[in-house]
Amino acid sequence: MTETKRTEIATLGEFGLIDHLTEGIELVNASTRRGVGDDAAVLDMAGKATLVTTDLLLEGIHFDLTYTPLKHLGYKAAMVNFSDIYAMNGTPRQITVSLGISKRFSIEDIDALYAGIRIACEDHKVDIVGGDTTSSMTGLTISITCIGDAEPADIVYRSGAHETDLICVSGDLGAAYMGLQLLEREKAALRGNDDVQPDFAGREYILQRQLRPEARRDVIEQLRQAGVKPTAMIDISDGLSSELMHICKQSGVGCRVFEEHIPIDYQTAVMAEELNMNLTTCALNGGEDYELLFTVPIGDHEKIAQMEGVRMIGHICRPELGMALITRDGNEMELKAQGWNHLG
Amino acid sequence: MTETKRTEIATLGEFGLIDHLTEGIELVNASTRRGVGDDAAVLDMAGKATLVTTDLLLEGIHFDLTYTPLKHLGYKAAMVNFSDIYAMNGTPRQITVSLGISKRFSIEDIDALYAGIRIACEDHKVDIVGGDTTSSMTGLTISITCIGDAEPADIVYRSGAHETDLICVSGDLGAAYMGLQLLEREKAALRGNDDVQPDFAGREYILQRQLRPEARRDVIEQLRQAGVKPTAMIDISDGLSSELMHICKQSGVGCRVFEEHIPIDYQTAVMAEELNMNLTTCALNGGEDYELLFTVPIGDHEKIAQMEGVRMIGHICRPELGMALITRDGNEMELKAQGWNHLG
Repeated sequence: MTETKRTEIATLGEFGLIDHLTEGIELVNASTRRGVGDDAAVLDMAGKATLVTTDLLLEGIHFDLTYTPLKHLGYKAAMVNFSDIYAMNGTPRQITVSLGISKRFSIEDIDALYAGIRIACEDHKVDIVGGDTTSSMTGLTISITCIGDAEPADIVYRSGAHETDLICVSGDLGAAYMGLQLLEREKAALRGNDDVQPDFAGREYILQRQLRPEARRDVIEQLRQAGVKPTAMIDISDGLSSELMHICKQSGVGCRVFEEHIPIDYQTAVMAEELNMNLTTCALNGGEDYELLFTVPIGDHEKIAQMEGVRMIGHICRPELGMALITRDGNEMELKAQGWNHLG
Repeated sequence: MTETKRTEIATLGEFGLIDHLTEGIELVNASTRRGVGDDAAVLDMAGKATLVTTDLLLEGIHFDLTYTPLKHLGYKAAMVNFSDIYAMNGTPRQITVSLGISKRFSIEDIDALYAGIRIACEDHKVDIVGGDTTSSMTGLTISITCIGDAEPADIVYRSGAHETDLICVSGDLGAAYMGLQLLEREKAALRGNDDVQPDFAGREYILQRQLRPEARRDVIEQLRQAGVKPTAMIDISDGLSSELMHICKQSGVGCRVFEEHIPIDYQTAVMAEELNMNLTTCALNGGEDYELLFTVPIGDHEKIAQMEGVRMIGHICRPELGMALITRDGNEMELKAQGWNHLG
């Protein structure tokens, strides 16, 4: 018997595994404009672009039901998919919802989960058009696919950033990660002590950012109203560094980001201090912000400056210069994409 | 503290749960033509119809890796989605593939799985356009969404069957279920005995039907060439009885199916005999056949009679007459949809 070769998946990591699996895939259908490699696939349907994105959420990996209400989980599961469609500068229209449910869950539980999905859909005018429901041996599995549309000329890929473009980000960063740290700390503290309720006063914002993120349709609308079309765009699910890396890699450019310009909320800063964590590291690598990261031509500087909730944090440069953070004290530090590595 | 109500999901069953969750969903997008309730959703993209279907496969529920080669599993996971698109009389064009992978699996394992998916895609000219890859705490999770297209006028729903229509089925039934029974028997017999290899000689067909099902594009093509448009159509994943029930319920009709006309392969019959199982029950409720079940106007009788691999097994009747099987000895038995109930 010959021995079968066994290579651990951790040697590739998530992005490496995806590259490996999708290497050499040839697209044969005329309607397939863009496949793997952006926030969503792009299909050409009679001249109109259809966008497709999908997310798989597994209990114990992506969520912990000890502190995540099922209604919030449903809301978030839908929202992260809408966020991918907005990140293509498109409009989400339909989702399919597949659920794997273990016996631990009652109909009331699944109703709560579904109620959250439906609220998210109502807020963003998205239709639930199908799905699959099955039992699971262990825990809860949620797989959502979202379909959106866009005028072909409006679509923004990750690959369009040019030298001198401004790097912009919506909202603030690191709060969802701090919310997660807080929830994990309280979970550990309360173990075996069901009667005590944690006190979250003054920390509502970071909890909300973790449990009930909002996809930034409002930012997309602001950009349209201002007549700004980003050259590249991505949503921040794995952390600013990781997403910047995607844009720079796919656009063939480098970047400079200024630490002092990275938007961070007060509650995020307080929590990082309390946990003795480096605030900038949290903002760069925390993940789950679901904010939009995009680049615009430098000529749009004035328009961006007038927008509420959008910050310019740096600029795109030549690829030879690499990706770097300019710290508050003026030093240059190479940006590394740590992000979330679920396969690590 | 008020007690939370807990209703077991088993009280509703899979179809009941889906009905319950999707009750009262209102579709708000002009592009959504048909949502939950058929083999695929139907979207209207600039006058052309887009079809969307999705399947969630979980280890321990839908497949057993003790006897399922990963390459075959990948092939089957893609194929069952194509089958849903063909069942709408459409053409599959794109899929997204999401994988949840536990540490038990190596890159070589996932390569094998993906190789199977890619072979299925090449055979049916389908593009892999995206997906999601994550680690899992337990086992393997596969979630595939398939996008297809069709001319709006060509789409066949489950709801179009009329009184006097002929009920037709492609291929033969019950073989995949017998293949599963054989594999389960050999697994039990070989437990703790790794040196012995099972002898599957003369049973290749039922194994192939279980491990490597084929979506019936050829049947769709035959129907088109013959100029036959079915009035209703569904693919047989949960068993003939269950699928007939969907067509009858959604079309508001009854049916009569003749036991003697149900197509069954010789190997299926031999295996049922050996296992002392009722052959007709296996053919009616076995599931995983991935054949097409459809109805045609009685005027198409001659055309169907000339088709290879398609059998007329009964006819549609008034709803008051219910769903019944006419046995070989001329008795009428009410048809009940046992099917697979993964949530039972």
